[in-house]
Parts: sequence; C-alpha cells; structure tokens
Amino acid sequence: MKRIVLGIQYDGRPWQGWQSQPSGQTVQDTLEAAVGQIALHPIKLGCAGRTDAGVHALEQVVHFDTSELRPLSSWVRGVNAHLPESIAVRWSADIVHAQTEDAIEFHSRFSAMARTYQYVLYNHPVRSPLLAGRVGWVFRPLDVTCMRAAAAYLVGEHDFSAFRAASCQAKTPIKHLYEIAIRRQGDFIFITVRANAFLHHMVRNIVGSLIAVGVGTHPPEWMATILAAADRKYAAPTFMPDGLYLSKVDYDPKWGLPQQDSALNWFV
Amino acid sequence: MKRIVLGIQYDGRPWQGWQSQPSGQTVQDTLEAAVGQIALHPIKLGCAGRTDAGVHALEQVVHFDTSELRPLSSWVRGVNAHLPESIAVRWSADIVHAQTEDAIEFHSRFSAMARTYQYVLYNHPVRSPLLAGRVGWVFRPLDVTCMRAAAAYLVGEHDFSAFRAASCQAKTPIKHLYEIAIRRQGDFIFITVRANAFLHHMVRNIVGSLIAVGVGTHPPEWMATILAAADRKYAAPTFMPDGLYLSKVDYDPKWGLPQQDSALNWFV
Repeated sequence: MKRIVLGIQYDGRPWQGWQSQPSGQTVQDTLEAAVGQIALHPIKLGCAGRTDAGVHALEQVVHFDTSELRPLSSWVRGVNAHLPESIAVRWSADIVHAQTEDAIEFHSRFSAMARTYQYVLYNHPVRSPLLAGRVGWVFRPLDVTCMRAAAAYLVGEHDFSAFRAASCQAKTPIKHLYEIAIRRQGDFIFITVRANAFLHHMVRNIVGSLIAVGVGTHPPEWMATILAAADRKYAAPTFMPDGLYLSKVDYDPKWGLPQQDSALNWFV
Repeated sequence: MKRIVLGIQYDGRPWQGWQSQPSGQTVQDTLEAAVGQIALHPIKLGCAGRTDAGVHALEQVVHFDTSELRPLSSWVRGVNAHLPESIAVRWSADIVHAQTEDAIEFHSRFSAMARTYQYVLYNHPVRSPLLAGRVGWVFRPLDVTCMRAAAAYLVGEHDFSAFRAASCQAKTPIKHLYEIAIRRQGDFIFITVRANAFLHHMVRNIVGSLIAVGVGTHPPEWMATILAAADRKYAAPTFMPDGLYLSKVDYDPKWGLPQQDSALNWFV
C-alpha cells in the first residue's frame, strides 16, 4: 500500500469549491473520478485546504491510498487525460507505508505546517475582460501604505472571530498569522497571507477590510479595533472570491515532496 | 456629427471572432448592441483587425459615427455596463468631422499604419489550467535560438502565400513584416509580430512553422524554403488560436488617440 501525493492546480470559476457535493460540480468529485480511472478502484481524496466556490489553486496538495502499482508519471499524465481543462495535476510523489496502520504519518491536511493564500487586486478605473474571474477589481485608488499599516495589526496569534464566516466549522477562532505582505506592481496589488490555518472566508474578509482602509473609509488603526472586538459584524463585507489563490502549503522537507515555485509570476 | 473611436479589450474564447455573423455570437454584434444602448440609434462599427474565433484583443480599435452628444466617459463606463465580462471598452476619443463628407479622414482600418500581434506559448511538460484558452501549449522543449534564426527570414516585404489560409480575402499576399521578436521568460515564449497588415491565419501559420523549427523537426533554413515556395501546403498546420492577441494598432499621432501600453499584463 502506498500513499500517493499530488500537487493540483485549478481555475476555481467553473466549480462549486473543493469539497464534494451531491451536485458533483466540485473539484474533489471531478478529481476523484479522474484518479479512479487510473487507479481502477474508488478514490477518496484528502486535501490541504478546502477552497470555496470561485477560489483558485496554484498548488493544492491532495493524497490517497492505493495498492495499484503505477509509474509516478501516470498519476500526472494519465489523470490529466481524464480532467477538464480547468484542473490539472502538476506533480506526484509516493510515500511507502510502514508495516502498521499506525505508521501512516503523512496527511495532506494534518501534516501541513502552514498555508499561503494570495489575493490579486486589479486597481484600475476600467475592469479587465482578460482578467475577469481571476482578480478582484477595485476602481477607486488604493493607498498601499495605509493597507500595510492596517495589515501589521493582524500578524501574530489572535482570535480571528472578526473575520470568521457564520458557516465556519473550525474548532477554534485562534490562528497564528505568520506574515501578510502587500505589494503593488503597476495596476496590481498582491496580498500574500501565510498562517498555520485559516477560518472560513478569513482571507476574503481580511481583504475586504484592507480595501476599506485602502480607499480611506477607515484609518489603519480601525483594523486593530475590529480585531480586538472579535465580532464579525464590525469588519467589512466578504470580498469577491475572484482574486483568491491557494498558493502554497508548507510541509516538513522530510517528505521530499516536489513542490514547485507557486509565486504568481505576472508577465508584462 | 462626430466620429467616436474606442479602444477595446476582449477574451476571445466565448466568441465566434470579431466579425458579425447571423448567430450574433461575435464581438462586433455584442459591442454594436451595447454602444447602441448609449447612442440610442443603430450602430455599425468599423475595426482595425478582424480577429478569428478564440483570438483575444489587448487593444482592438473601432469607430462609429453619431450626432448624439455624450460625455466621452459615457462611451466607456456606459457601454461597459451593457457588455458581458469578456469584453470591455478601455478608452474613447472623438474626432470632429469637417464640413464636408470628404473631410472624414480617420478610419480604424484604413488609417492603421501597422498591426502588432503577440502569441504566447507555454512550454512546459504539463498543461496549465489557469492559462487554458490564453496560451498555446507546447510540451516538447523549444529551442528559441533556432526559432529566432527561422523568423529572421520572414522580415521584410514578401509574398506570404505560404502562410495564407484558403479563406483569405486579401487583395494581395504581399505584406511588409516589420519585426518579429521571440523572447523566453521562464516557461513562456512570447512571439511578437508587427506588419503593415496580415493575411487570414498568417500569425497562427507562422507560429506553427516556428514551433516545427523549435522542436527540431526542421532546420531554421526551412523557413526560407517554404516562404519562397509561396504555397500553403509546405508550411506547418495552423496553430491553435488560444495564445494569440491583437495587441497594438499604430496610427499617426496627429489623431491624438489615448492608446495604452498594450503589453501582456497577467499572470500564471
């Protein structure tokens, strides 16, 4: 028995999110069917981060168990032949189980040490048809210096209830946010957030509040106030999913996963 | 009476090309309807370059005549409110007609001095779901040095019949190709072609032949041979439209059009 680990990329627009639904219109349902075509047995995938409808992945990490012997490349090229154009396997790795069930150590979700999401804003008076569904559009000018000052209040271990959706099933609202970087490049603003884990809608709620600061509706200190209040009703509305990318999942290097540079590389 | 000029951007995937069809599923039909909503009279658009199905535009230039007085911004924001997400007006300008009909000088097609197309190739063993429909995918390694040597034979005034589709309605196969630049950036290869005008499928046929050289099927000198033969049957098959962008139309600066930097501006 082997545990196979896959690096997955997808355009979130055609899908009702990662997690399996009765409709079947999810990345998980589609990917499980495609992997099953190669494994020749039913597949149940675990994943590092359950993305919402419309949210993209530059490098989602998933795993499944199989006793079928296949060249590792079959889990990439073979599976891709059964996937629609909006989903692709980018790499595969295998982890051989030790003798006992207790020794199954790697798990895409529980072994993850941190997740990185990137949000891309297009800050221009006119919307971009070539970036529709791929960026969040803000037509009012954004002050990145104010946004950075506001973001700084979020770094560290906090109760993030202010940015937690009512639907969130996490056991605790306390998360450790390691880093939040905000960079402007031409008409684009890249917001990179790295944390041990995220609450439901947490990145989109943070981005919505950063935009409220960036357009001048609130001063940077407002972010400290709403964080401390720990009540969702004070923060800004949930921002659109369009510009959100699950971009990196950190694992212990001992697993030897062939993870790729998942930076958003804009070409100009 | 004024002649209004618009800079247009579109994602070509949902459309059967620029030119009006009975189906109505074209950029021209959709844009004429949207402009008509603001002009309040039927609109017939002229355009600089009739793009094929699946071909994108970073800056298509179109024009129409109207006697309705509107702020210039209405032709951007107002029209965009009536357009689907895959098409947008990026800028507008007006050219006031002189007293006589003979004095109507500017025409988006006939006043154009040159057109620039860009083709983006994704050269990677695995396809990219986030770039599906936006790039041409080549999984075999491409030798850019050989491609550049082959491309050099095309510069200048030539009979481009070798790269002309049977459906082409141009009066002459002789075009002046001013520049063809090939640049690699990471996994991407950007091919930029500038000419006074193009034959039907000319860029996609040239790209197909450059790929044949890039993967080693033919030496660079083969390009000179097929160009001289002036017969479509010797060149490579027409390459997919996915990575093709009409990126710039050159006009005399006297028209004062607010054309924008049409560099490819997105990410992977």
